[in-house]
Amino acid sequence: MGLSGETGVTFITISEVGPRDGLQSIDRVMPLEAKKAWIKAEAEAGVPEIEVGSFVPPSLLPQMADTAELVAFARTLPGLNVVALVPNAKGAARAVEAGVHGLSIPFSMSETHSIKNVRKTHAEMLVEIAEVATVAKAGGVHCAVGLSTAFGCTMEGAVHEDRVVRLAVAAVEAGAEELSLSDTTGYADPAKVRRLVRAVTAAVGPGLLTTLHLHNTRGLGLANALAGLDEGITTLDASLGGLGGCPFAPGASGNIVTEDLVFMLAAMGYETGINLDRLMAVRGIIANALPGEPLYGFTPDAGLPLDYRSGSDT
Amino acid sequence: MGLSGETGVTFITISEVGPRDGLQSIDRVMPLEAKKAWIKAEAEAGVPEIEVGSFVPPSLLPQMADTAELVAFARTLPGLNVVALVPNAKGAARAVEAGVHGLSIPFSMSETHSIKNVRKTHAEMLVEIAEVATVAKAGGVHCAVGLSTAFGCTMEGAVHEDRVVRLAVAAVEAGAEELSLSDTTGYADPAKVRRLVRAVTAAVGPGLLTTLHLHNTRGLGLANALAGLDEGITTLDASLGGLGGCPFAPGASGNIVTEDLVFMLAAMGYETGINLDRLMAVRGIIANALPGEPLYGFTPDAGLPLDYRSGSDT
Repeated sequence: MGLSGETGVTFITISEVGPRDGLQSIDRVMPLEAKKAWIKAEAEAGVPEIEVGSFVPPSLLPQMADTAELVAFARTLPGLNVVALVPNAKGAARAVEAGVHGLSIPFSMSETHSIKNVRKTHAEMLVEIAEVATVAKAGGVHCAVGLSTAFGCTMEGAVHEDRVVRLAVAAVEAGAEELSLSDTTGYADPAKVRRLVRAVTAAVGPGLLTTLHLHNTRGLGLANALAGLDEGITTLDASLGGLGGCPFAPGASGNIVTEDLVFMLAAMGYETGINLDRLMAVRGIIANALPGEPLYGFTPDAGLPLDYRSGSDT
Repeated sequence: MGLSGETGVTFITISEVGPRDGLQSIDRVMPLEAKKAWIKAEAEAGVPEIEVGSFVPPSLLPQMADTAELVAFARTLPGLNVVALVPNAKGAARAVEAGVHGLSIPFSMSETHSIKNVRKTHAEMLVEIAEVATVAKAGGVHCAVGLSTAFGCTMEGAVHEDRVVRLAVAAVEAGAEELSLSDTTGYADPAKVRRLVRAVTAAVGPGLLTTLHLHNTRGLGLANALAGLDEGITTLDASLGGLGGCPFAPGASGNIVTEDLVFMLAAMGYETGINLDRLMAVRGIIANALPGEPLYGFTPDAGLPLDYRSGSDT
């Protein structure tokens, strides 16, 4: 339909992060061939960007040991933007060597979380980001910074919005070409999303804060996505089947479900370039490769509305 | 906090519909004493309004056979607004006799659905609504009309927005003192919610369309609620534990989950008068009375954020 929300934007980029955020959250290792089949099938369903893995030491995350091979494979898929997560400059060098289009480094807004997670203060992380940006730039690779725990931290509690704004500006000064706000802990709500997107955008200028990385921890994922869309967010991370989250365990923290997100966007008249029937069929690949692993999402079970084709599909 | 969305409204009324919409969607009959315990516990948690049942023939819905006794019991609970659903003027007379504060009659925007469900055309329904409104007025009872299948119908597909607007005006002319839009089929999306709330409000005047009755069929329930709040909706129906819906069955159509909705509203700074810890404890009553019945909701499993008390609770 080409209609959209309040911002005039009609195309929203879905960035599939299941092969990275979903798989790193479960204990089992998905075989390389299954990962390739998953990535290929999503690309063929029209997903424009996939975070295929992270360049962390395999001793820490054996699930991500084959990321370089996945990058090489994903680069053969026409039109796909291939991105990976890196924790530091060493990882960035590996990502550039593997051939990513873009890389992303997480920068925790909670200093407690940052020290516990990567043993770096905020000042040390800004030095690291500058090095990552230098490595990326030298390799002709896009450098994004993910502002994690931006909406709150399970260790520190509230994260002050002024601090997020200040660190967002510092990340851009350190070389970030793009920013995302990550609700790592599921503490976001639509009002907070609106305030923080507005405040960060006002501070760093237009076009830099493009992305929200949302979890559905307390069921607010799509409401938070809607709030972001209203404020001009143009990229949304999501995970097929909400892989890696478990609503039946305390602290459940799965990503928002790609299928439900695509349904919402299509129903609202946004374009994503994604064929939802083909996207939903990709669930079978995960179910076969990881039998018994819970897959979430309401749209696959409910099916599409009778008027979906005529009204909203691309 | 007293902050809110864009509309300046700070108090949102939660209307618990689980004892009616939840219980009528499952096969088992909840014992009267368990229903009473549930209603009492929710009222004590601060829920201001409960739809305790419907006045339909017990041969059709044995789950609702004890609605008159529930109304009498609920009327003893201080401060609680006691409402019931009625299909026709006969049901309205029973509701008034039982002592409800308010009644609601569903009016299906899909004529196919109306004929199939209550064997009445739109014209015949408008006559029925006028009779219901007369009975209600004579009894000093508030009369609401729920515009069901307002966002689409599983039999007809799309329901044109012009038709909903026209029938909303006709319902008010027939005597409706309040309107709600019901997403009976889970076809709503935030853009459609915004358009339809605006269009109906513009046609019937302010203060009449107060309520959204949303299902979480395709996972968009809270996003749709947010869209309604932005357009001035002040009452939201919800069901504790999403009772009656089943995301693992085709056509799943549970109401939005009261617990997640209350969390979202509190986090955003809206007031609901509800203590969320006490509300979540009510799940135990349903679990005991209906063992094995799935209860949904993410917040009860994830728990409340560290900063919830200080930031948002009442």
